[in-house]
Amino acid sequence: MASSLVNGSSSKHDVVLKTFRLLIADLCQQFGGGHPGGAIGMAAIGVALWRYIMRYAPHTPDFFNRDRFVLSNGHTCLFQYTWLHLTGYKAMTFEQLKSYHSDRVDALCPGHPEIEHEGVEVTTGPLGQGVANAVGLAMASKNLGATYNRPGYDVVNNHTWCMIGDACLQEGVALEAISLAGHWKLNNLTIMYDNNQITCDGSVDLTNTEDINAKMRACGWDVIDVEDGCYDVEGLVQALTKARASTEKPTFINVRTVIGLDSKVAGQAAAHGAAFGVADVADMKRKLGFNPEEHFVIGDTVREFFADLPARGEGFVKEWNDLVQRYTEAHPELGGEFQRRVRGELPADWQERIPTEFPDKPTASRASSGQVFNPLAQSINSFMVGTADLSPSVNMIWKGKVDFQHPDLRTTCGINGDYSGRYIHYGVREHAMAAISNGLAAFNPNTFIPITSSFFMFYLYAAPAVRMGALQHLQVIHAATHDSIGMGEDGPTHQPIELASLYRAMPNLLFIRPGDGEETAGAWIAAINAKTSSTIISTSRHALPQLKQTRRDGVLKGAYVLEEAESAAVTLIGVGAELSFALDVATELKEKKDITARVVSFPCQRIFEQQSLEYKRSVLQRHKGIPAVVIEPYAPNGWERYADAGISIKRFGHSLPGKAAYKFFGFETGVMTDKVGDYLDRIKGDEALRGEFVDL
Amino acid sequence: MASSLVNGSSSKHDVVLKTFRLLIADLCQQFGGGHPGGAIGMAAIGVALWRYIMRYAPHTPDFFNRDRFVLSNGHTCLFQYTWLHLTGYKAMTFEQLKSYHSDRVDALCPGHPEIEHEGVEVTTGPLGQGVANAVGLAMASKNLGATYNRPGYDVVNNHTWCMIGDACLQEGVALEAISLAGHWKLNNLTIMYDNNQITCDGSVDLTNTEDINAKMRACGWDVIDVEDGCYDVEGLVQALTKARASTEKPTFINVRTVIGLDSKVAGQAAAHGAAFGVADVADMKRKLGFNPEEHFVIGDTVREFFADLPARGEGFVKEWNDLVQRYTEAHPELGGEFQRRVRGELPADWQERIPTEFPDKPTASRASSGQVFNPLAQSINSFMVGTADLSPSVNMIWKGKVDFQHPDLRTTCGINGDYSGRYIHYGVREHAMAAISNGLAAFNPNTFIPITSSFFMFYLYAAPAVRMGALQHLQVIHAATHDSIGMGEDGPTHQPIELASLYRAMPNLLFIRPGDGEETAGAWIAAINAKTSSTIISTSRHALPQLKQTRRDGVLKGAYVLEEAESAAVTLIGVGAELSFALDVATELKEKKDITARVVSFPCQRIFEQQSLEYKRSVLQRHKGIPAVVIEPYAPNGWERYADAGISIKRFGHSLPGKAAYKFFGFETGVMTDKVGDYLDRIKGDEALRGEFVDL
Repeated sequence: MASSLVNGSSSKHDVVLKTFRLLIADLCQQFGGGHPGGAIGMAAIGVALWRYIMRYAPHTPDFFNRDRFVLSNGHTCLFQYTWLHLTGYKAMTFEQLKSYHSDRVDALCPGHPEIEHEGVEVTTGPLGQGVANAVGLAMASKNLGATYNRPGYDVVNNHTWCMIGDACLQEGVALEAISLAGHWKLNNLTIMYDNNQITCDGSVDLTNTEDINAKMRACGWDVIDVEDGCYDVEGLVQALTKARASTEKPTFINVRTVIGLDSKVAGQAAAHGAAFGVADVADMKRKLGFNPEEHFVIGDTVREFFADLPARGEGFVKEWNDLVQRYTEAHPELGGEFQRRVRGELPADWQERIPTEFPDKPTASRASSGQVFNPLAQSINSFMVGTADLSPSVNMIWKGKVDFQHPDLRTTCGINGDYSGRYIHYGVREHAMAAISNGLAAFNPNTFIPITSSFFMFYLYAAPAVRMGALQHLQVIHAATHDSIGMGEDGPTHQPIELASLYRAMPNLLFIRPGDGEETAGAWIAAINAKTSSTIISTSRHALPQLKQTRRDGVLKGAYVLEEAESAAVTLIGVGAELSFALDVATELKEKKDITARVVSFPCQRIFEQQSLEYKRSVLQRHKGIPAVVIEPYAPNGWERYADAGISIKRFGHSLPGKAAYKFFGFETGVMTDKVGDYLDRIKGDEALRGEFVDL
Repeated sequence: MASSLVNGSSSKHDVVLKTFRLLIADLCQQFGGGHPGGAIGMAAIGVALWRYIMRYAPHTPDFFNRDRFVLSNGHTCLFQYTWLHLTGYKAMTFEQLKSYHSDRVDALCPGHPEIEHEGVEVTTGPLGQGVANAVGLAMASKNLGATYNRPGYDVVNNHTWCMIGDACLQEGVALEAISLAGHWKLNNLTIMYDNNQITCDGSVDLTNTEDINAKMRACGWDVIDVEDGCYDVEGLVQALTKARASTEKPTFINVRTVIGLDSKVAGQAAAHGAAFGVADVADMKRKLGFNPEEHFVIGDTVREFFADLPARGEGFVKEWNDLVQRYTEAHPELGGEFQRRVRGELPADWQERIPTEFPDKPTASRASSGQVFNPLAQSINSFMVGTADLSPSVNMIWKGKVDFQHPDLRTTCGINGDYSGRYIHYGVREHAMAAISNGLAAFNPNTFIPITSSFFMFYLYAAPAVRMGALQHLQVIHAATHDSIGMGEDGPTHQPIELASLYRAMPNLLFIRPGDGEETAGAWIAAINAKTSSTIISTSRHALPQLKQTRRDGVLKGAYVLEEAESAAVTLIGVGAELSFALDVATELKEKKDITARVVSFPCQRIFEQQSLEYKRSVLQRHKGIPAVVIEPYAPNGWERYADAGISIKRFGHSLPGKAAYKFFGFETGVMTDKVGDYLDRIKGDEALRGEFVDL
């Protein structure tokens, strides 16, 4: 089959490959920078993929059932941009293609592919994550297929193709994701390994001498070798065809290539991240039979070679639209739900499924989180819920949940799971969990709302992928439990003193610390409403009092007044698991020192920042000269914007039972009350102190 | 050999194993919490290791040439604490052993092992990192041996033993480190895999069905199976003996065990992280022939079984001290240097090797960093310098550098390296790089000062290990280049908008952004002086002007006045790569608006925090009512403590050439000057604004 596909085209391939390689060289030479070598080495893989194998529609880039392509080695972005141009994506004009490394602010050719742009499935760049994204994209397809396909109606059956370089196979996040893809037997996923044996430092032999094929096989992958990856388009087409047809396992295609082929630095690290220089580019052109004086040449043969792809793509689109129409007629209810998923919508009544009140007994907010969210997960297929091996701790298991697993595991291991399952055991792989979730979310806007869960501290492992989710405006919700020193005995390695400072500073990320069940409901509502942001909901391991004053709609403003008071001497800011501390201190200030305090609950800085200046001042009232004191057992960094003083922690934690840990760090009501009282005395005597943040 | 070691001891082993398992059950039951299952399952491994194999000295815990033991599955800490007690470590008294999960603030039994305590080599807990720490410890031994051993004088030849659970083999950081250890052929490293096939969520089959032995072999490891890891002490001793004798490769011992053996929840996830309950513990005791009414029983047989270990250890110590004495007599110069390394000292004149001035031409601070540091690395063996595949970018290569590599690579790959080499190609494995560096640093205080290097943004991948270095008070220096949006075309995935906020909040971590060559010298001096802190030196990709006003001793105070002015209307705070921006704005404020500005250089918040209030006020002068404006193209979080307003960035970056990126985000002198001028006008009209941080 494959050979018939490419039959008689080898002379055309020759022209296309030469043209492509010289285009890359010219595009880097133009502004004297960029990454030419990898893209040049991978040229034949691109021809096989874009011309013969991949199902996509250049004029309908968001065709739902298209194959997904991920460029995990994102620095070779010119590879992707050039194919987008040649295959007819409208946005990627010739002028746009030449914007690479220019100072054009609306360029579609940034230094790494970005999801915002036509034909790009995920933003890549930080190495290894693309592999995990691809795993997520393949899971999305499997899950939708298992949920919605019916005999004769394969409404979702696309394939995911992931291009990687040597470096991606070194990064831990990729290795985690590779283990999972093998475990899940994702036969709709193919990795194409641009095996040029060169990284920035030189030969891969400097750092990696393992048997990669054996390693991939041990991880449950099929392996195909392609020896002449620079020229053998036919061999590549055969390999890719076999990969698409795999019934059992994901496929790893090990393609030997030469970085910077035909340049003077071919096969060397120097070809990786710098333009070749004017003379070398001219020499390349001479060597390949092109005119060294001409630049950015795309001849008619090349144009014609790709000319039918837009029409072919529209054929795929029409075929699929027709299929979905017939499917919806045959299966009206399922078809309706499927189309709602395609549109990225939730059932209109989703918010009504959240409890309106909570039992009035001390409850860990991680438990409240489950009470709020699990009814949603149980009844709405959009939610795919994962955990990094902390199921017993994070409370995200709903009644009747089915695991996302290969159905074979039902018989081999007695595990209740198949591909329609929406509970994901990621193992202890936090980074891959978040990066795979980004892939799930990137499949199509809001078709999935992936949830991750782990202890909050372990979101430092996941941080590079949490960042990429926020950067890509993906709606991913991270349910982080065991926050604060209140998590106790596990000690300083598990107590997240400084981590909130990162997430409060991270753009487009809602970091929410709810104070009780009611605020936890607000946190989930905020997260589910945030269609183009990622969210971390940070909850407690230990029981918290359920407060009468909390309001879920208050959370939706970031901060709100919990207890107002006339002529207050101080505003106490309470946060999350320690919100009740602020109320207790306010009470004791009044009782013991006759000091009147207002209390503000402040679950989310970023949402608060989005409010009007008027609202913000009405909450904080610092403009009236009332000092604000924040109480949170974390590094204070970031609170200085909202408070004049803080009861916080500036060292790592300590292994003690939760209550003892609070005591050890001075978070006892009496101690805090005295600190606030003393502070109010001090600033009376020292006006200068009013302009400085004071650590109490 | 092995069988003779354990000859006739099987009945004793039986008593020891039972006693140990019941001790663990009692210790968890005491306060109704903790992690009993793993420790119980691993008991026989402990007997083999602590009684027969490991070379250590309970009464001289810091014996330099001791074998190192790493408990990567740190939640099983009772395993380690109990052996420390039984083998005679003085600090681990019976009372201390019983402090696990108590509210005793000086307990030596925190929820995970902590480096501060006798007999603990590294703090573990965040899974997977212990494997990388162990690789670092093994490298340290190899490097010292290759550097200092001479025929007849093996002054360093210890072995590193790393205990892991199922989870450690899932974490990416461990997989990165495993690849490296295989590549480096670290035959002095053994991993003992507590293969109980259970994690928190249940069977490992839920998340991992790979062929782990084949995977380890593919990564260059020898593999030994031990089928009956619960009881077969003799088989374990044989396996460990073979591992120590390995000449070619590191060894992976796959030990089948049963989590929570002898309890009702044996072999189940429920045995992992909760006490068994009073009834089950009593049943265990009956089953094992113990009195269910008695707790914490350690009989004479058990005491006697371990009784000679302290004396044996002192024998090792004496033998080694004698060897070092003879070695120093035979090789006086080398011996002197070796003993200096043992004491963790640098040559007294180290600071004189740093350039006293820099060429007056624009220079990237990453280049200045190399100019400052490479003379030190070249001449002082304490420095081991690694890079995550960014050698051409980070400028850390000194003249005549030799790689840390297995010497075979000289012939097989033509690589200039052996175990005495001190330049480490980590590949694209940032997390393992930092975690391995922690292991190097943990070998012995300050014997090594490990350096890592990569782009600053990739220190988010490394962050969990950077944190563990700071938490353990390890002197590790991270040379982070390509900071700020000025790094340019690589775009938002590489532009570290929010990352500085994390590192400024992280306890015991000096995050330093030097502004030019002189300040870069100051940054390195601060980092090298910080014997019990980790440091990140964050430098620019692009050329920076060399400023006349900068002072290296200013860096050592965290912030200092760069340009003083009488009757200033504003203080401009400049930072790192953008320090000159503050000077430019000051000049233009004067010229165009007749506004007088003072300028402060502020490379390190944490060092500044350590200064006196008097000094801090003299630098900032906000107490005099002079507003401060900070200029930094990062999220402002954290600067609110020092400034009243900021020119900053609250979104992700943009792919543009560096200068164009600065322009795009408003970091042009004219634009910034206008913003500061407008701000000064606004606060004249609105006193309330003075109490609030204003984003300009």
